[in-house]
Amino acid sequence: MPAAESAQSYPLLIKQIFSSAGRFEPDNKIVYRGDKSFSYQEFRERVQQLANALKAAGVEAGDTVAVMDWDSHRYLECYFAVPMLGAVLHHVNIRLSPEQIVYTMNHAEDKLVLVHDDFVPLVEQVKGHLTTVDGYIRLSDTGAESTSDVDFIGEYEKLLAVQDKVCNFPDFDENSIATTFYTTGTTGNPKGVFFSHRQLTLHTLNMVGQLGSYDGLPLLRSDSVYMPITPMFHVHAWGVPYAAVMLNCTQIYPGRYEPDKLVELINDYQVTISHCVPTILQMLLACESGQKTQFNDWKVLIGGSALPMGLAQTATEKGIDIYTAYGMSETCPLLTIAHLNKEIRSLPVEQQLKYRILTGVPANLVDLTITEPDGALAPHDGSAVGEITVQAPWLTMGYAKEPEKQEELWEGGRLHTGDVASVHENGFVEIKDRIKDVIKTGGEWISSIELENLISQHPAVAAVAVVGIPDDKWGERPFAMVVPKTAELEAAELQQHLQQYVDNGHISKWAIPEQMQMVDDIPKTSVGKINKKEIRAALSA
Amino acid sequence: MPAAESAQSYPLLIKQIFSSAGRFEPDNKIVYRGDKSFSYQEFRERVQQLANALKAAGVEAGDTVAVMDWDSHRYLECYFAVPMLGAVLHHVNIRLSPEQIVYTMNHAEDKLVLVHDDFVPLVEQVKGHLTTVDGYIRLSDTGAESTSDVDFIGEYEKLLAVQDKVCNFPDFDENSIATTFYTTGTTGNPKGVFFSHRQLTLHTLNMVGQLGSYDGLPLLRSDSVYMPITPMFHVHAWGVPYAAVMLNCTQIYPGRYEPDKLVELINDYQVTISHCVPTILQMLLACESGQKTQFNDWKVLIGGSALPMGLAQTATEKGIDIYTAYGMSETCPLLTIAHLNKEIRSLPVEQQLKYRILTGVPANLVDLTITEPDGALAPHDGSAVGEITVQAPWLTMGYAKEPEKQEELWEGGRLHTGDVASVHENGFVEIKDRIKDVIKTGGEWISSIELENLISQHPAVAAVAVVGIPDDKWGERPFAMVVPKTAELEAAELQQHLQQYVDNGHISKWAIPEQMQMVDDIPKTSVGKINKKEIRAALSA
Repeated sequence: MPAAESAQSYPLLIKQIFSSAGRFEPDNKIVYRGDKSFSYQEFRERVQQLANALKAAGVEAGDTVAVMDWDSHRYLECYFAVPMLGAVLHHVNIRLSPEQIVYTMNHAEDKLVLVHDDFVPLVEQVKGHLTTVDGYIRLSDTGAESTSDVDFIGEYEKLLAVQDKVCNFPDFDENSIATTFYTTGTTGNPKGVFFSHRQLTLHTLNMVGQLGSYDGLPLLRSDSVYMPITPMFHVHAWGVPYAAVMLNCTQIYPGRYEPDKLVELINDYQVTISHCVPTILQMLLACESGQKTQFNDWKVLIGGSALPMGLAQTATEKGIDIYTAYGMSETCPLLTIAHLNKEIRSLPVEQQLKYRILTGVPANLVDLTITEPDGALAPHDGSAVGEITVQAPWLTMGYAKEPEKQEELWEGGRLHTGDVASVHENGFVEIKDRIKDVIKTGGEWISSIELENLISQHPAVAAVAVVGIPDDKWGERPFAMVVPKTAELEAAELQQHLQQYVDNGHISKWAIPEQMQMVDDIPKTSVGKINKKEIRAALSA
Repeated sequence: MPAAESAQSYPLLIKQIFSSAGRFEPDNKIVYRGDKSFSYQEFRERVQQLANALKAAGVEAGDTVAVMDWDSHRYLECYFAVPMLGAVLHHVNIRLSPEQIVYTMNHAEDKLVLVHDDFVPLVEQVKGHLTTVDGYIRLSDTGAESTSDVDFIGEYEKLLAVQDKVCNFPDFDENSIATTFYTTGTTGNPKGVFFSHRQLTLHTLNMVGQLGSYDGLPLLRSDSVYMPITPMFHVHAWGVPYAAVMLNCTQIYPGRYEPDKLVELINDYQVTISHCVPTILQMLLACESGQKTQFNDWKVLIGGSALPMGLAQTATEKGIDIYTAYGMSETCPLLTIAHLNKEIRSLPVEQQLKYRILTGVPANLVDLTITEPDGALAPHDGSAVGEITVQAPWLTMGYAKEPEKQEELWEGGRLHTGDVASVHENGFVEIKDRIKDVIKTGGEWISSIELENLISQHPAVAAVAVVGIPDDKWGERPFAMVVPKTAELEAAELQQHLQQYVDNGHISKWAIPEQMQMVDDIPKTSVGKINKKEIRAALSA
């Protein structure tokens, strides 16, 4: 149907999220650590001032602007101002090693870097190795003069103060890249993922509905008080800040994560919704003020790794309303989320927990399937397992400058998550293992994590790791490395222990490892995870 | 950033709305008049059976399929099955004259027509004039054999029953047209508007968030019970059925609108949300069972024309939670909606009504401005008036086969609504008049409707119409045609009556008509509106 010649198509741009800021609840505030508070009107002006300051610093469409900051109102302003100029926002992962940070900043071709005072020493250390950066802006909480030898263009607040409060953001192709950041595996260089304006606008638009309009998932509405506890450099803080701006929520940005400070902010501002990894939740509950606080009306969305039932129970007893979600750096991130349907909601809370700690059901617009080793779609019966592949409107279209790795990621036209899962009849996804750790034996997949869980339930086991080792007949067979609590523990006893799970149908008889090794210690990675790569390498050496 | 070669972009298609059906609340139902009830699982199967039946009837991508039905589960199934095949769904406006219906069906090039028994006599009457139709499917509530001379392919339920419950819907360009329907003005032929998959998916995605996640507009959530009382052939029933499917709401389709039946369904199913024009609301409240019912927990979204304060008060007293919205056939339709921010919500209900009956604030993604007669943007101060022009992701890109009219609609790259409004500081839009009825005098715009309202407040005035008449000096001057209650009423008395509104600053002194005419009757259109075109024509004759 031929359109009117003068009709304009409407690109999906981050500026359209921005245009909702303050439209519905103009009196709500954006707060930084309790020290600073801005109305949505001020936020709108500051974003435009920041954009003008960035232009004055030479930023043009297509340039990459890096941010090294804790969670702050400034970072939120960058979430909008940088991409709305047509530039790319690089969320620098400040937890990487200095060497990796240099790698990512050179790889992303960062031109301008905004640096919080806490990271100035790091920048001093690495700046000689940054090959594309030609300017730095300082982010200071104190406003004190800099004593650094970094030649800053200026301090953020001072640069904003002199700028006009109006900036006319241009229209451009909705597929223009808005953000980039890096994901690390156990090997190789960090890999750059990237997201377009269209992808982030759709992710936001969906999140606004998904987290507020479903009674089984009432997390984020315009009256919510939101505080992220997933770093803003980590997958767009799961995309919630963009949704919170569109909803005009009150937002609390906590700066550097200090458990007692976080609890103080939750209490002071009556925060209703946060999201974090299980470890952070554990830290919060364990800190001094956390122990004293009853967190009624605080909803927490957990992701990043599986939520242990014990922690979920403790959190529930402390009044926390717990939900889980699943996604990855490659997926913007939202893929699945724990929607509690009417049937689940009718259960007592302790029985709901089973579903609250599962990975949830696919979000709107997400097409998720599990594929068996032979490539066939696995049935959604709660027991068949397969690799999760997805299609959704907000997946990275590749890895920057990594032609081979990005074809692997997208093999066959769907994004491969590398996670193995089963899907229950009610749609809940249950992650079983990473595909690289799953044991492929005789055409079946056995979860190494499940075997570890079962073996660890033997009273004489202190720690256990299970990996697959090559087998001529079966392809692979499971191998268990066990740290016993008592010297006498033998493989036969553990095999007998596992037999009960075979008898009750929980695992197949092929899952019992013939080979086990008693050891004093299990190899770990630098972040404390079992180093299965090293175990496999040692076994095949 | 080059994407992986194997990466697939994700088109926004109606099938992605469909894929959410039953994902969240599988036990909710879709009900027809209380007689039939389908689970979401059955709905999913029926839509696929319908698609297979349409394919069997020869429907291919690009074909147009017309529906003539009351609001039904069948119509909802067509909302999905037809466009998901790549065909175009023509919502036939069965309130047009037979001649106009023939015009629209030939103009849209309808190939297949689904006809409810109630419209079979109409089809018998006009089928000789339908130049493109080559098949009819009968929609029967009774299942009785047809006695018509229309050669039906079959009856809907019987055709579905023999079809497979699985249909693999193809991917295609998201800009493919999904729906079309016709809008009528006071002159000329009906004009065809058209909407793409992308537009409807975005409209739906936004509506899912807009109507549920904002505490100032809590209309539609997954637990809502929804019943449309705006016909499904009228601008996608305002787009709500698509949103209700994505939310997995319980939905009640009432068939032909019979006031007592509607009230019965509201009571029986505890309907929580409906939408309609003011006239229908009035009918419902006035019917026998409406008078007896207290409608607690029923939210009603009003659009189509201004909601009079008196009706809003009556509805509120009957327990109805009233909101208003604004849009047009050309706009899918959502443009603005009454979001009650925290400040408004803190007011007593009677004071909230002022905002509830205004047109509301622009919805997310809607860019709305008002333009003064000289082309300048009018300030949002509650008094300056201008024509509303909009940009949004869901506007018709033209009028089908009407090259001149569609350029007028989109003049300057924004869609011209033809409505004149002011915008208040809090963002609320107040429609003042149609631009063709507004009086352009001395570079200012005076609302004919506002003058009519003020004049009608004189106790001796039974009815009044105000139009602009040409004036050499001022361009136009207002002219009032008045039906007096008493024979003695004179223009001077009405001019004096208007002077009080000049004195208190409500209207400018230029708004007082020098010319008034006392008449017995005011010309009306066939639907009972003041026929300003006829009045102007008579005055210039």
